[in-house]
Amino acid sequence: AFREEFLALHPYDQAQFFEKVGPDSRQIIYQYLSPKEMAEIFQSIELDDDEYAPFLKEMETIYAADMLSEMYADDAVDVLNELGKDQVASYLTIMDNESAQEIKDLLHYEEYTAGSIMTTEYVAIPENSTVRSAMTILRNAAPEAEIIYYLFVVNDDHQLTGVVSLRDLIIAEEDTLIRSIRNERVVSVSVSEDQEEVARMIKDYDFLAVPVVDFQNHLLGIITVDDILDVLEEEANDDYSKLAAVSEMDTFDKGPLTAAKKRLPWLIILLFLGMFTASLMGIFEETLDKVAILAVFIPLIAGMAGNSGTQALAVAVRGIATGDIAEQSKMKLLMREAGTGLITGIVCAVFSVGIVFFIQHDLLLGLLVGTAIFGSIFVATLSGSFIPLLIHRMNIDPAVASGPFITTLNDIISILIYLGLASMFLTQL
Amino acid sequence: AFREEFLALHPYDQAQFFEKVGPDSRQIIYQYLSPKEMAEIFQSIELDDDEYAPFLKEMETIYAADMLSEMYADDAVDVLNELGKDQVASYLTIMDNESAQEIKDLLHYEEYTAGSIMTTEYVAIPENSTVRSAMTILRNAAPEAEIIYYLFVVNDDHQLTGVVSLRDLIIAEEDTLIRSIRNERVVSVSVSEDQEEVARMIKDYDFLAVPVVDFQNHLLGIITVDDILDVLEEEANDDYSKLAAVSEMDTFDKGPLTAAKKRLPWLIILLFLGMFTASLMGIFEETLDKVAILAVFIPLIAGMAGNSGTQALAVAVRGIATGDIAEQSKMKLLMREAGTGLITGIVCAVFSVGIVFFIQHDLLLGLLVGTAIFGSIFVATLSGSFIPLLIHRMNIDPAVASGPFITTLNDIISILIYLGLASMFLTQL
Ligand SMILES: [Mg+2]
Ligand SMILES: [Mg+2]
Ligand SMILES: [Mg+2]
Ligand SMILES: [Mg+2]
Ligand SMILES: [Mg+2]
Ligand SMILES: [Mg+2]
Ligand SMILES: [Mg+2]
Ligand SMILES: [Mg+2]
Ligand SMILES: [Mg+2]
Ligand SMILES: [Mg+2]
Ligand SMILES: [Mg+2]
Ligand SMILES: [Mg+2]
Ligand SMILES: [Mg+2]
Repeated sequence: AFREEFLALHPYDQAQFFEKVGPDSRQIIYQYLSPKEMAEIFQSIELDDDEYAPFLKEMETIYAADMLSEMYADDAVDVLNELGKDQVASYLTIMDNESAQEIKDLLHYEEYTAGSIMTTEYVAIPENSTVRSAMTILRNAAPEAEIIYYLFVVNDDHQLTGVVSLRDLIIAEEDTLIRSIRNERVVSVSVSEDQEEVARMIKDYDFLAVPVVDFQNHLLGIITVDDILDVLEEEANDDYSKLAAVSEMDTFDKGPLTAAKKRLPWLIILLFLGMFTASLMGIFEETLDKVAILAVFIPLIAGMAGNSGTQALAVAVRGIATGDIAEQSKMKLLMREAGTGLITGIVCAVFSVGIVFFIQHDLLLGLLVGTAIFGSIFVATLSGSFIPLLIHRMNIDPAVASGPFITTLNDIISILIYLGLASMFLTQL
Repeated sequence: AFREEFLALHPYDQAQFFEKVGPDSRQIIYQYLSPKEMAEIFQSIELDDDEYAPFLKEMETIYAADMLSEMYADDAVDVLNELGKDQVASYLTIMDNESAQEIKDLLHYEEYTAGSIMTTEYVAIPENSTVRSAMTILRNAAPEAEIIYYLFVVNDDHQLTGVVSLRDLIIAEEDTLIRSIRNERVVSVSVSEDQEEVARMIKDYDFLAVPVVDFQNHLLGIITVDDILDVLEEEANDDYSKLAAVSEMDTFDKGPLTAAKKRLPWLIILLFLGMFTASLMGIFEETLDKVAILAVFIPLIAGMAGNSGTQALAVAVRGIATGDIAEQSKMKLLMREAGTGLITGIVCAVFSVGIVFFIQHDLLLGLLVGTAIFGSIFVATLSGSFIPLLIHRMNIDPAVASGPFITTLNDIISILIYLGLASMFLTQL
């Protein structure tokens, strides 16, 4: 009864249950379910990749190997990628040859490429079949294939020559040649393409899957939309973490020590940068000593630089991520940001002069703060867009352009502008 | 020849071309293409919702109405939602009754609900049909339906009683009853469900579409995965903008004036908050006057508070967005963040004492800076997680918890801690 009740659930719900219960209950699940049934659950576990290993260790080696061979190859590869080489080898040896070969083929693709997220369980049909024979192929492939709603048409060399949707297939006459109903303008991606680029394509074209080919147009696999949803979430988290300087977004199921470990490296680097800023400010100790009121506006000016820089940074990083930026000339973008910095800088400067004059009844101090705010916002807006574009152009890891680094840079620039100006007019203050 | 060449392209590529050429060329496109062909293009335009209107204005009213009626109802509704009531009414009056009714039904759902992103072009089959008759229904529905790979099983009252995938259908015998192969544990969403919740469900269950029902389980429509990709991007942009305080992410195709208009409201609010901070610091003018070196560490301490607060904020906001937080107790989360703040605070404080002592050879100053850094990081980490959780709990617009506001709050707190402590030990400094 447990078996029937449990298997009637959607695999995702089975997986939720599986994750939550303890190791003893899981042993019972392994006993009751076949490796094939367990494979469906394992495919539906939505964990970070590094959390599968403990479950595998709980299973008998043969059971685990059988389960891995029953999984969709892309999902099996995700799991195996987290294990040591010895362990992978031991599973692959026990496994049936066909599955082992499929998995081996997928194991060597670089992370974040199309190859790393594709699966080999697709439906291919020879270009000179008829609709009737295509339906037969489809029926046979249905239990194994990850998606059966697109049929990929190949020639004798297994080169991709077209695509037919199941929609087109079921409304066509049985004797029609596939050749005559296939769509020859099939959109495919190269196996080394960046996964983010693939995601963008599937999102734009509203595909359910996209074929992956090598440089000679041989069909190697497909990427399905469900995996693209995961890629999009991963990439969004990634950009988001960078803006906030959390290395790999830590999640709420980890303890404080893990969280601290992920945040500390950034905080310590930023601490050193901050100490460098402090030393630079030391140059102006004399100025600060003479006119103490100057210090009072430092957080404001540094803060405004930080805020406008972060705004510009966010727009640039999202633009790079969504591909919007690729369509425009870099120069035009920078001119646009310069214009934006000019306008926002002037408006904020005018407000500042007014407020400082109102509070302190000191026009010169007001003009000084206003000028510093104008300069800081202008420079921060420009650097907030220029630095990520430059880094993107140079193909360097964009993590160095993350929010707090740009903020710290802007802190330094804004303080130099402010205290530099103040020192020049020191006798008047 | 132009017509054939153009129509051979994928609708998305047609749309890209359509967007880029000028109004004169678009007039030629309207002349050459039927409203139905134009509908396919219009569905594939991936613009912000407010950018369709100008294209509609270029078309003859009848042509536009025909096109809207040929579009998938959800996409037509997206376009119409951006027009004035008069204009919507004028299109709906000209349109065929069936399409007009479909659109009217969808127009009144609230933004960001399941109803606002669902479409009514789905395949429904009566529960007592056979596989053969279901295939007939499917073939007839295929040209109109947005997705035909799930068949939704309904009873005589149009209540949802199951689902059959086309995969199951094509491997079943022709005489089999749908009743016997349907999956009765169909997962559906309520029409008033939040779109983010729907996205999470489709992502977790790896669905291609999910049925939408009213509170009596009547089938109202379906939501397809391609629209979920757009929802996920929209929501990610949204969270991202909040962290950076850009209201509605501005994109790179707008001019500097538009960009400035979107950024200025935030900057001006933050300017006033900054001025408030400055006034607060005025309290300590005397302290700053006596020990000018104190001012040098202000940006560092405020910066560290800002950085650790942003880290905590990012984790909390993403946790809320992905639903991870819902599964855990709020108290546990806050305890975890308190622990994290404690650890990161102590580590950074120890480093600070060392560096300040090394640079300034002043142990008391070092201890003062270190203590202030510890306090700032601890408080900032707690407030960075507590405030978004509180706001989420109170159902207030979480925009008020955006990065810069928390940063400004942390600026104030950290400066109060630092200069407060300094004033207490003023005679020793
Ligand atoms: Mg999956
Ligand atoms: Mg397999
Ligand atoms: Mg994968
Ligand atoms: Mg799309
Ligand atoms: Mg997959
Ligand atoms: Mg990225
Ligand atoms: Mg679309
Ligand atoms: Mg319609
Ligand atoms: Mg919609
Ligand atoms: Mg999924
Ligand atoms: Mg749609
Ligand atoms: Mg949201
Ligand atoms: Mg700051």
